[in-house]
Amino acid sequence: MIYNREDVTQRIVATKVAKGLKWKDVAAEIGMSKEWTTAACLGQMSFNKAQAETVGRIFELPDEAVAWLQIPPYKGSLPSGIPTDPLIYRWYEVVSVFGTTIKELIHEEFGDGIMSAIDFSFDVQREEDPKGDRVNVVLSGKFLPYKNF
Amino acid sequence: MIYNREDVTQRIVATKVAKGLKWKDVAAEIGMSKEWTTAACLGQMSFNKAQAETVGRIFELPDEAVAWLQIPPYKGSLPSGIPTDPLIYRWYEVVSVFGTTIKELIHEEFGDGIMSAIDFSFDVQREEDPKGDRVNVVLSGKFLPYKNF
Amino acid sequence: MIYNREDVTQRIVATKVAKGLKWKDVAAEIGMSKEWTTAACLGQMSFNKAQAETVGRIFELPDEAVAWLQIPPYKGSLPSGIPTDPLIYRWYEVVSVFGTTIKELIHEEFGDGIMSAIDFSFDVQREEDPKGDRVNVVLSGKFLPYKNF
Amino acid sequence: MIYNREDVTQRIVATKVAKGLKWKDVAAEIGMSKEWTTAACLGQMSFNKAQAETVGRIFELPDEAVAWLQIPPYKGSLPSGIPTDPLIYRWYEVVSVFGTTIKELIHEEFGDGIMSAIDFSFDVQREEDPKGDRVNVVLSGKFLPYKNF
Amino acid sequence: MIYNREDVTQRIVATKVAKGLKWKDVAAEIGMSKEWTTAACLGQMSFNKAQAETVGRIFELPDEAVAWLQIPPYKGSLPSGIPTDPLIYRWYEVVSVFGTTIKELIHEEFGDGIMSAIDFSFDVQREEDPKGDRVNVVLSGKFLPYKNF
Amino acid sequence: MIYNREDVTQRIVATKVAKGLKWKDVAAEIGMSKEWTTAACLGQMSFNKAQAETVGRIFELPDEAVAWLQIPPYKGSLPSGIPTDPLIYRWYEVVSVFGTTIKELIHEEFGDGIMSAIDFSFDVQREEDPKGDRVNVVLSGKFLPYKNF
Amino acid sequence: MIYNREDVTQRIVATKVAKGLKWKDVAAEIGMSKEWTTAACLGQMSFNKAQAETVGRIFELPDEAVAWLQIPPYKGSLPSGIPTDPLIYRWYEVVSVFGTTIKELIHEEFGDGIMSAIDFSFDVQREEDPKGDRVNVVLSGKFLPYKNF
Amino acid sequence: MIYNREDVTQRIVATKVAKGLKWKDVAAEIGMSKEWTTAACLGQMSFNKAQAETVGRIFELPDEAVAWLQIPPYKGSLPSGIPTDPLIYRWYEVVSVFGTTIKELIHEEFGDGIMSAIDFSFDVQREEDPKGDRVNVVLSGKFLPYKNF
Amino acid sequence: MIYNREDVTQRIVATKVAKGLKWKDVAAEIGMSKEWTTAACLGQMSFNKAQAETVGRIFELPDEAVAWLQIPPYKGSLPSGIPTDPLIYRWYEVVSVFGTTIKELIHEEFGDGIMSAIDFSFDVQREEDPKGDRVNVVLSGKFLPYKNF
Amino acid sequence: MIYNREDVTQRIVATKVAKGLKWKDVAAEIGMSKEWTTAACLGQMSFNKAQAETVGRIFELPDEAVAWLQIPPYKGSLPSGIPTDPLIYRWYEVVSVFGTTIKELIHEEFGDGIMSAIDFSFDVQREEDPKGDRVNVVLSGKFLPYKNF
Repeated sequence: MIYNREDVTQRIVATKVAKGLKWKDVAAEIGMSKEWTTAACLGQMSFNKAQAETVGRIFELPDEAVAWLQIPPYKGSLPSGIPTDPLIYRWYEVVSVFGTTIKELIHEEFGDGIMSAIDFSFDVQREEDPKGDRVNVVLSGKFLPYKNF
Repeated sequence: MIYNREDVTQRIVATKVAKGLKWKDVAAEIGMSKEWTTAACLGQMSFNKAQAETVGRIFELPDEAVAWLQIPPYKGSLPSGIPTDPLIYRWYEVVSVFGTTIKELIHEEFGDGIMSAIDFSFDVQREEDPKGDRVNVVLSGKFLPYKNF
Repeated sequence: MIYNREDVTQRIVATKVAKGLKWKDVAAEIGMSKEWTTAACLGQMSFNKAQAETVGRIFELPDEAVAWLQIPPYKGSLPSGIPTDPLIYRWYEVVSVFGTTIKELIHEEFGDGIMSAIDFSFDVQREEDPKGDRVNVVLSGKFLPYKNF
Repeated sequence: MIYNREDVTQRIVATKVAKGLKWKDVAAEIGMSKEWTTAACLGQMSFNKAQAETVGRIFELPDEAVAWLQIPPYKGSLPSGIPTDPLIYRWYEVVSVFGTTIKELIHEEFGDGIMSAIDFSFDVQREEDPKGDRVNVVLSGKFLPYKNF
Repeated sequence: MIYNREDVTQRIVATKVAKGLKWKDVAAEIGMSKEWTTAACLGQMSFNKAQAETVGRIFELPDEAVAWLQIPPYKGSLPSGIPTDPLIYRWYEVVSVFGTTIKELIHEEFGDGIMSAIDFSFDVQREEDPKGDRVNVVLSGKFLPYKNF
Repeated sequence: MIYNREDVTQRIVATKVAKGLKWKDVAAEIGMSKEWTTAACLGQMSFNKAQAETVGRIFELPDEAVAWLQIPPYKGSLPSGIPTDPLIYRWYEVVSVFGTTIKELIHEEFGDGIMSAIDFSFDVQREEDPKGDRVNVVLSGKFLPYKNF
Repeated sequence: MIYNREDVTQRIVATKVAKGLKWKDVAAEIGMSKEWTTAACLGQMSFNKAQAETVGRIFELPDEAVAWLQIPPYKGSLPSGIPTDPLIYRWYEVVSVFGTTIKELIHEEFGDGIMSAIDFSFDVQREEDPKGDRVNVVLSGKFLPYKNF
Repeated sequence: MIYNREDVTQRIVATKVAKGLKWKDVAAEIGMSKEWTTAACLGQMSFNKAQAETVGRIFELPDEAVAWLQIPPYKGSLPSGIPTDPLIYRWYEVVSVFGTTIKELIHEEFGDGIMSAIDFSFDVQREEDPKGDRVNVVLSGKFLPYKNF
Repeated sequence: MIYNREDVTQRIVATKVAKGLKWKDVAAEIGMSKEWTTAACLGQMSFNKAQAETVGRIFELPDEAVAWLQIPPYKGSLPSGIPTDPLIYRWYEVVSVFGTTIKELIHEEFGDGIMSAIDFSFDVQREEDPKGDRVNVVLSGKFLPYKNF
Repeated sequence: MIYNREDVTQRIVATKVAKGLKWKDVAAEIGMSKEWTTAACLGQMSFNKAQAETVGRIFELPDEAVAWLQIPPYKGSLPSGIPTDPLIYRWYEVVSVFGTTIKELIHEEFGDGIMSAIDFSFDVQREEDPKGDRVNVVLSGKFLPYKNF
């Protein structure tokens, strides 16, 4: 029996490594972006039934695992509050160093409220550059003003 | 005597509130982006001499403070490792929930390495949307491959 | 000069104690609920100009403080991640003990997504009860589904 | 042999996913609210004998597991002090941002004391709203004054 | 102006040291137990008006401080989650080592629920003993069963 | 092979649940108080040979487990520094809220030193009360003065 | 007014530096060991009246400070749970690396119980050694067996 | 296959309990002190080949385990930064309470530098005392002055 | 099936111990430095296909493990934020004690920016010295200036 | 009166900024390396009398401050266990990612023991490189074998 979503995630990742699959190809089969698909396969989003069955077929999962893929998971992908992996830490550092700046500029433009992390999407792209290619990431989140009551 | 950069930052912020200034106007006077300018005023970047003098004039700072503005500061703008402010927390949540996804996709495209947080820039913009305007942020960082040795 | 919002909050609270004011009376003068008004006075919400001036008058604040009241504050009202105060701890305990239950039930009713803490209001009331009066709190937050992309 | 309550909880959750059960249907069979039933199934409450046997039948548990369901569990449902899951974090954020406000208003109404988290119940409901349905949660806790001695 | 209860507590303690007062004598003047009186003077309980005035007289406090004494304080008397002071640590150790034992025995006697820390009193006494006098502390808390709903 | 005391503790607790035993009956067979017996069974005290054999018989433990019961264990019964279980948290809260009070009163009575948590006993009793029965716990610890040297 | 013992400690240390005093000379005047005297001056022990007056004379303290020296202090001399200072860290490392060894050997010799940190003394000496002088520290603590009850 | 040193340590400890061995007897067979031998058996030191083979024979370890015993282990014997076990905590408390005193006295005698925890030995002995036997521990560490450069 | 890179690392280390291999010999077969090779074998770098196959041959790994060796791992080699192992702690201590010094000197020479930990190499060598051999480590990282934008 | 070494450090740093001094020039006047001099000025090393007087002259310090410069300071230069400043974090990351590698290689070359952080020096240099200049840092620490006893 499969007792939690992490077991399913581990099988997906292990099969991906063993079979040499690519996330963008999985995404194409699911019909969603590579960003959403990867997040969902890593246990941060829930699939609908058709998507879950496609994932189950690609990664040769048992029926129980396909059921788990449709359950909203307990989210949070990192093993520690401050990530140790250098790639992910750089993103943490952006929040640490530029967090108050982003706060100031969103408030200056929109007033008090937040940028949603739920009505949210992001897109990771390569930008070619003769001085060294760059990673460009566009984050898009709905502005949510605080409700006055 | 001014003993540290935080004192200068506090004066800048207090004067900004008292005089009702806007970061984008400060940026225009400095001749840099609003993002870089705000970060530098908040003690996360260092100014060159001319910029520091302009900032000193705008915020009516003493000479000592202008000297401090040209010193690379001890960076990190948040009072706790996991930020309590909801706007900044949402960014932390993006790293927590989507961090492993971003890692997978950058590695899939570029191989092992990181997205620099130093050779890095970002841009905060309003995207009008009939369902509610969105905050769009573009992050651009040079890809840095691990050196083999 | 007032260097931050906490200074303003401290003055408001000290004046409230010294003059024996009540939050519900302050709320009535502002024209907002007692919940929103108290949160805003404690540095968790931002006032508009008219409200800030009223607050300034009630608590005899200088002009600079009135300016600070209109700035979105760095939010988070507790001195430690796990609160020590017994009344507030009980709320933390509700999240700790019943958090997964609330998650299950919201997902069962609405699917994957969250209950907003921004498009959010709450109301604290006394419920009379012969076995001992009860505190009833209604929390109302918009359901926000995860965006698929 | 079953060595702890978490093992029982894991089996209940795994069976629920595999069989596609709903908490509200389980609650109807037990004859308790969906909130209490879910909390109890997730290892935060203890069942009486009849309830435990019903749960055992629904989730096909062995006798030992039914015995464990009647033992007061070590409570606390979250894997970390500050929850990473966005839905549960929003509740933590409500405590962090509005905790001091709730404290002030309960004290203003009732004097020194707390809102009980033991003589406590809660109810999760959908409120239909043309601007987007809302999650309404009513929390009801007995006011407990501090004993003077 | 006095900005918080800690300032009042500091004055009380400093005056007690300077004047060589004893808590039991303060308690006698207030007409409460030495335990409750000490806790209240240390900022963990709130006084009624008459008690606050007596405390104000004993410790020569200004009127503002007397007002603060009647406000329910933000409770929690220790500077760190795990106390460093050896006397207080021994109590933490009792909770750490015997906490699960106490839980088992209260549940065995009363069923699921807690021993209240609000409807609670305690009494510290010397027990003479030829092998070395002992500190005896009686803790008395109302048993609160979990509400079923 | 049994590799640690926790394995023994788990077997004892699992057998207790499966067989429906009571700590006070175990204590009667051992000839010690219910408090000491429970603590020892939960891995916080060490048994002598005769006691260990009795425990082994009651809980049907293998010889190796009986040997482990006579070894001083690595003590500390809680999975986190600040306990999440509400019953045990209330005791932590007593230390947090009243810890400085207890310190003051013991010093006022005895001078500098501590209340031992080693030359220590405790007793948990039900006190009948028409307003709701109470849990009374008597803690008795030898006063240990600091050695001057 | 002096509000706490730390203020007294700071004055003692500052005066010691300014006047170039030595702890062993202070100890000789007090008539106690250099270890006890230093600990007491650093706010970890309490002086009797005569000792406190001598300390007050040596360090030119006001009367209030002399009163504070006779009050049992809130003990714990380090600014963080894991000390950063290399000399003190080495002692923490001894506990971390050899702690379980010390536990095993004391239990092997004495049975279950502890080595007291209250009925405790220590002595720091130079041991001359041609390969480099050594620091020898003798720790002496009464063995305290657990009370059976 | 044995994957780490902890597995070897667990087998040693389990065999010691099952066979009722004593550390001092193991030490005698190895020809080292009981302190060094115990630390090495608990995974804090590395054995040479002959010693490892003797340990392997005493504890009936497989060849792989004997190989592991000769590898410098990842040191640190405690499951948490602040130990919960009362015996080991007392040592932590000595560092916490007397750490700054020890620092002062070593500096007063030797100047700036540390007491080595590597060129270090210790010895645990019973001191008979009519008022209760004492644990005496001698710690001896080479003084290492800071290098000037 | 192998579910993660740590499993591969554990097998490599266990085989190294069992067969008595040396990292420098593995490095020679791979054709990289001993530093890079060891880091990669310990799960901190990714191998190319040919290198992975060589590693697989040396350590007798299954095909799946060879696939895992080519995947960028989640980096960070320590079980805790502050390392307990004395050798590694000394490096942490260098950062703690000399971190601000290194920062000052790099800024004095290069201006604001960092020393890369990605375009980075290091070399560990023995330096013979009659007073005791020394460990010399050369760290070389590209200077990366902050981008102005 | 100057109450601690941090005050002295703050004055040194503030004067350095105000007067535009360079560490290497200060070092030249002291006659020590720029690394040692900077560390000592930042409160991590102690000066001898002549050096302290030179520092006092350069930074215009009062006599008391010059006395403080000769006292071994409480070392550790960072405000948090995991540094937030990107330059210093990269060094922490080197320890986190390559710490176990460095441990393996030192043990492979030298056996069990450590690289001293006390009998230690370091040197920061610019290495010109057409692809971008590099920061080269040489760390040199005496190897200290564990004492067997």
